[in-house]
Amino acid sequence: MRLYIGLLHYPVYNKSYQRIASAITNFDLHDLSRLAKTYGAKGFYVITPLEDQQKLVERIVRHWIVGYGAQYNHYRKEAIRLIAVAGSLEESITKIRETEGEEPLVIATDASKQTERSIGYSRAAEILHSERTVILIFGTAWGLDKEILNKADYILEPIEGSGEYNHLSVRTAAAIILDRLAGRYQAK
Amino acid sequence: MRLYIGLLHYPVYNKSYQRIASAITNFDLHDLSRLAKTYGAKGFYVITPLEDQQKLVERIVRHWIVGYGAQYNHYRKEAIRLIAVAGSLEESITKIRETEGEEPLVIATDASKQTERSIGYSRAAEILHSERTVILIFGTAWGLDKEILNKADYILEPIEGSGEYNHLSVRTAAAIILDRLAGRYQAK
Repeated sequence: MRLYIGLLHYPVYNKSYQRIASAITNFDLHDLSRLAKTYGAKGFYVITPLEDQQKLVERIVRHWIVGYGAQYNHYRKEAIRLIAVAGSLEESITKIRETEGEEPLVIATDASKQTERSIGYSRAAEILHSERTVILIFGTAWGLDKEILNKADYILEPIEGSGEYNHLSVRTAAAIILDRLAGRYQAK
Repeated sequence: MRLYIGLLHYPVYNKSYQRIASAITNFDLHDLSRLAKTYGAKGFYVITPLEDQQKLVERIVRHWIVGYGAQYNHYRKEAIRLIAVAGSLEESITKIRETEGEEPLVIATDASKQTERSIGYSRAAEILHSERTVILIFGTAWGLDKEILNKADYILEPIEGSGEYNHLSVRTAAAIILDRLAGRYQAK
């Protein structure tokens, strides 16, 4: 499996569907890096064009990789070291291409059902396990801007719970999606 | 489905496997209440014996149910209203028994494989869908104290990712577990 995950902070929507750059959330970095490590992702790109936010990510990473955190909790270190900063989706794609020698397939995630380029979990899991390089993109705030969805090769079907309500945090949505796509668990 | 979830803050372990009461984490309340709503749980017990921590939970709940948060985001209100405070696991069980007219089955979760009373996901999902009242217990900090595991009717198998690493946050672990047990998604 040559899976990367990306957490996009720009361009995303705010509550009024205006394009914004969202702030880095420390919990997202920890939760998603631990998910990335648990489900065998090769890297976790934290994507933001804002320099102060990039520096914040780098400071958090340093704390857990070489600072006090590295002694305090080595499990956390193993997860956090998967984090890399990128200024844009394009920059993360370029870096992955340099590492893997092929263009990654971009699979975006969204809470709404898409009419075009929608992909189900079984098919997406097949692609992942075919050794094709994939970057799975999660949006912060109110979700990925249409511009990003339009650039994606596929858009993963939304998570369905048991009813109509579908308003999960990016942390818990990423957990469910990674378990469905990259976990060993098979429901009977 | 008559499912309740419980997030236990005492007794849990700290990093050195000492028994502690952990602090309320705002992100846990939001993420787990949204999960509870998404996966059709009837209630979400936040369990702590510390009065100042109980008051903190009540203040957060009030903000989203009747305060500014209720106007700001009604989706959040729908989720947060599932939260109830209990001083102990026993108190949450008593309250559920009063509501449902039967003793809930207690299914605890743990990151380690148990030798006794271990239950797999398929069997646990069957129980949930049989209309038996169930409370699913998650531990904060380094996990549920042995005393709680000993009281549980069953202990759910740990989540397996793609390798040996298994150090998820309680938020993301709860997401994966609820999707496996109570979601409509069936892996092929």
